[in-house]
Amino acid sequence: MSEVDAADRYVVGVDFGTLSGRALVVRVRDGAEVGTAVHDYRHGVIESALPDGGPALPPDWALQDPDDYRDVLREAVPAALAVAGVDPALVVGIGTDFTACTVLPTLADGTPLCEVPELRHRPHAWVKLWKHHAAQPQADRINALAHERGEPWIGRYGGKISAEWQFAKGLQILTGDPEVYRRAERFVEAADWIVWELCGVETRNACTAGYKGIRQDGRYPSADYLGALDPDFTDFVAKLDGPLLPLGARAGTLGARAAAWTGLPEGIAVAVGNVDAHVTAAAAQALRPGRLVAIMGTSTCHVLNGTHPAEVPGMCGVVDGGISPGAWGFEAGQSGVGDIFGWFVRNAAPAGLDSHERLTELAAAQPVGAHGLVALDWWNGNRSLLVNHDLSGLVVGLTLATRPPDVYRALLEATAYGTRMIIEAFAEAGVPVDDLVVAGGLTSNRLLMQIYADVTNRPLGIIGSAQGPALGSAIHAAVAAGAYPTIHEASAAMGRVDEGVYRPVPENVRAYDALYAEYRALHDHFGRGGDDVMLRLRAIRNAARDAAAQTDPVLEVIG
Amino acid sequence: MSEVDAADRYVVGVDFGTLSGRALVVRVRDGAEVGTAVHDYRHGVIESALPDGGPALPPDWALQDPDDYRDVLREAVPAALAVAGVDPALVVGIGTDFTACTVLPTLADGTPLCEVPELRHRPHAWVKLWKHHAAQPQADRINALAHERGEPWIGRYGGKISAEWQFAKGLQILTGDPEVYRRAERFVEAADWIVWELCGVETRNACTAGYKGIRQDGRYPSADYLGALDPDFTDFVAKLDGPLLPLGARAGTLGARAAAWTGLPEGIAVAVGNVDAHVTAAAAQALRPGRLVAIMGTSTCHVLNGTHPAEVPGMCGVVDGGISPGAWGFEAGQSGVGDIFGWFVRNAAPAGLDSHERLTELAAAQPVGAHGLVALDWWNGNRSLLVNHDLSGLVVGLTLATRPPDVYRALLEATAYGTRMIIEAFAEAGVPVDDLVVAGGLTSNRLLMQIYADVTNRPLGIIGSAQGPALGSAIHAAVAAGAYPTIHEASAAMGRVDEGVYRPVPENVRAYDALYAEYRALHDHFGRGGDDVMLRLRAIRNAARDAAAQTDPVLEVIG
Repeated sequence: MSEVDAADRYVVGVDFGTLSGRALVVRVRDGAEVGTAVHDYRHGVIESALPDGGPALPPDWALQDPDDYRDVLREAVPAALAVAGVDPALVVGIGTDFTACTVLPTLADGTPLCEVPELRHRPHAWVKLWKHHAAQPQADRINALAHERGEPWIGRYGGKISAEWQFAKGLQILTGDPEVYRRAERFVEAADWIVWELCGVETRNACTAGYKGIRQDGRYPSADYLGALDPDFTDFVAKLDGPLLPLGARAGTLGARAAAWTGLPEGIAVAVGNVDAHVTAAAAQALRPGRLVAIMGTSTCHVLNGTHPAEVPGMCGVVDGGISPGAWGFEAGQSGVGDIFGWFVRNAAPAGLDSHERLTELAAAQPVGAHGLVALDWWNGNRSLLVNHDLSGLVVGLTLATRPPDVYRALLEATAYGTRMIIEAFAEAGVPVDDLVVAGGLTSNRLLMQIYADVTNRPLGIIGSAQGPALGSAIHAAVAAGAYPTIHEASAAMGRVDEGVYRPVPENVRAYDALYAEYRALHDHFGRGGDDVMLRLRAIRNAARDAAAQTDPVLEVIG
Repeated sequence: MSEVDAADRYVVGVDFGTLSGRALVVRVRDGAEVGTAVHDYRHGVIESALPDGGPALPPDWALQDPDDYRDVLREAVPAALAVAGVDPALVVGIGTDFTACTVLPTLADGTPLCEVPELRHRPHAWVKLWKHHAAQPQADRINALAHERGEPWIGRYGGKISAEWQFAKGLQILTGDPEVYRRAERFVEAADWIVWELCGVETRNACTAGYKGIRQDGRYPSADYLGALDPDFTDFVAKLDGPLLPLGARAGTLGARAAAWTGLPEGIAVAVGNVDAHVTAAAAQALRPGRLVAIMGTSTCHVLNGTHPAEVPGMCGVVDGGISPGAWGFEAGQSGVGDIFGWFVRNAAPAGLDSHERLTELAAAQPVGAHGLVALDWWNGNRSLLVNHDLSGLVVGLTLATRPPDVYRALLEATAYGTRMIIEAFAEAGVPVDDLVVAGGLTSNRLLMQIYADVTNRPLGIIGSAQGPALGSAIHAAVAAGAYPTIHEASAAMGRVDEGVYRPVPENVRAYDALYAEYRALHDHFGRGGDDVMLRLRAIRNAARDAAAQTDPVLEVIG
């Protein structure tokens, strides 16, 4: 291609998502995105039964096939290079990011247990995807015992370990299939496994080790604690531990096999693994302490650098170097955001008003507060600050004059109030939030962005790339290749953000202060023990469905 | 017609509704409905401006033209007789019922002030329809002063007089147009005015005098109290008082003018006036103490005979002989029922599910509690028990799995919980409710009826007539004509009810007990001071709309 200057060098970022992987070719000098390609996983999310037959999976299971990840390297990377018209010889490094906690048991050489023939039909031998939610009983035990024993690390996770994380999933394997647990010589995040595949060297990255692996202050939970969970679980850290590297470090160099898959030169730098949300901070030039990155899609993930550790109730975690070396990385999340807006359009909007565009247009014409509504945005439970998946959504203020755009706007606002709750929790714990940068699919809704600026009373920037995670991985590749000395410098040169695109409008800020006070009162009443009606309704619902399913199997499907 | 036996006698019942009047010809012997006709009011509800021009009406006004009522006598009665094929000479009496409190100022001879040429352009000279809601400031003063002075009658109205009633509307005339007030020699319920038109004799019926006119224990409020409201209001009772007759009594005989209008024989009995809801009790054979009649349409009115007076907080009123002589008639109400279901179908149901029939079919397939939702049915405020029009609707328990039939069913159930609140308030005040009889348009929804039986844990009968009020008026006409000695005996012979059509299903009753407990906790939290968020949201909404209307007049129309 004519734009290609022979003096330029390139990096490849690969973003492994829930259903597909994306490769992006990026110019080292300025972060220009010159070519991209996507590959859909052949097996997608495995939720009902293993691919080649085998037993049906119980509810809440979500597995993946690790060979689908290799296919991304085989398919998407060469395709992106072809689209870019870049001579692979000009590529100096590759970086990756992954969903997390997505984790798998392997042999000592990295072979996934599900690729060991005699274990292939055992569900516990497969990759457990982040949204595998069947380890809740194990998470409950982990949390209860941690509080009982006063384990020092529990406060670093807002007081609660998630059922999605490594220890819960590992303990579920031990409980559900002790032989698979015993055969698992290594237990590794997919983020680290794919790097192992690329360079043949086993490493662990500081991000997933900290946020998903309970590694704090240089240590995993003690053998004493693990033995108290289950004597056979004492060796879990031995399966988990490995050479820990900081983000942006070079894990190794591209091996011959992976070079053949990707068409990239053998021997180029391979960056240590990383997580999609966290790597986006570099892409959005948002590594400065006090700048909150909100990756807004079906759900929202918040990442934020701070200068010191702090215990923020309800956050997902705080990890030293968890976003970039030299800072404490904080993470929080909202479990339903775009999912709720989509639910409304599909299930609660009448004909003619069932599109985001039309509802947004009508909602945008309203003055703040004119709909008279407040909602609690808990359609998919509440991650931060309440960490309770059994909470549910609420709308108050409905009248015969309420129209669909009114409720739609109230839902947009409710998610903004949820973000403000998180920001205030950080601030109260001594972790200031000065401004926001938003990434993800929802950035295109201008009304939503203005509401977030007004509700949080903070300027709001927008990431300048539609491929934030892949760009972030490419930035990390550039650092691993030595093109920049630090992630900060690479981010400054290669990342992109439109600063302060949305600024709070003072009269809207005042109006939202009053509405947010109502949200907070409802939040505390329904989320902090004032009235546990949501939990009871969930239990009643589940019992009613279970009873019906026993007499009429069809109802279970409807449910 | 061949079925007409020359020995049979007939009565005519006329039901004056909000938009039309209906005449029904009924056989005295057994209540057979042999012919009916409807006449729509030419001017309907006058809400924006008087018919022949004149000033625009302020918000919340609702007037009518009394000549529209005469048209019903001129048009619907002869048409019903023609349809029935009944010789008018066989008709022995006529009875009427009306919306209430619908009230007008007249001269001493019954001439409406709006028919006095020099007053025709004065809005206060016209009929104030029941849903004229512009007298709230006057109602507030009436209530505050009554409590301040400890007036004995205030407890008979659940502690609160409505802005719809005679004293509030009368005081509004005095405040708004003192000359019209002065010229009003009489101030009369339309229910009594139409009887005056029929027989030329001014009477007052025990029902509207009690429920709408604050007549208790043989007295209206004292001149002392009225003078304290406003010295010029002291004479209000003199304008209001008149020969009081019990329900079912003969007010007089049909005069020559009304005989010419209707085609009925001069001299037949004319029953004393009555109210649509109350007269329905006789049609539904529901005069027995302990049998609650629920007239369910856009809203619900509950009437119930008891053996003794009781003060039930939040009821509309208790009146000696207010439903039938010899019993204390209790009245309560829910301000939004069918209106809420209609709102949902129009504003919250997606294409393909936007019909009551389809939503009901899907909702009926669910086990109780399987949707995990509870709603507060306050889309149009709350009449009984909270008497607050500024309360609003709430839904809790929403998840990404919630579907439209789930919410629809939750709304049906919420109105049933509202009825159970009323039933329990009566029971707690020593007024038992043994069973329910339902009348009105919603009786055709079998799921709704079963929910009411299950939620209230009481057998539920259905009125056997689609014209309950007109049949009730015909029954009263038969008593006035001397065909039966009492309303009870006439009701037994001429009324119709299908007893216990819906019976509570024990397992549903148990399931609903748990859900009702959640409703009651929410009811008290949001309706009894735990969190006045609904009132604040209403105030915020009104302020936002007012502010917007000042800068952009179009928004007021949208609102």
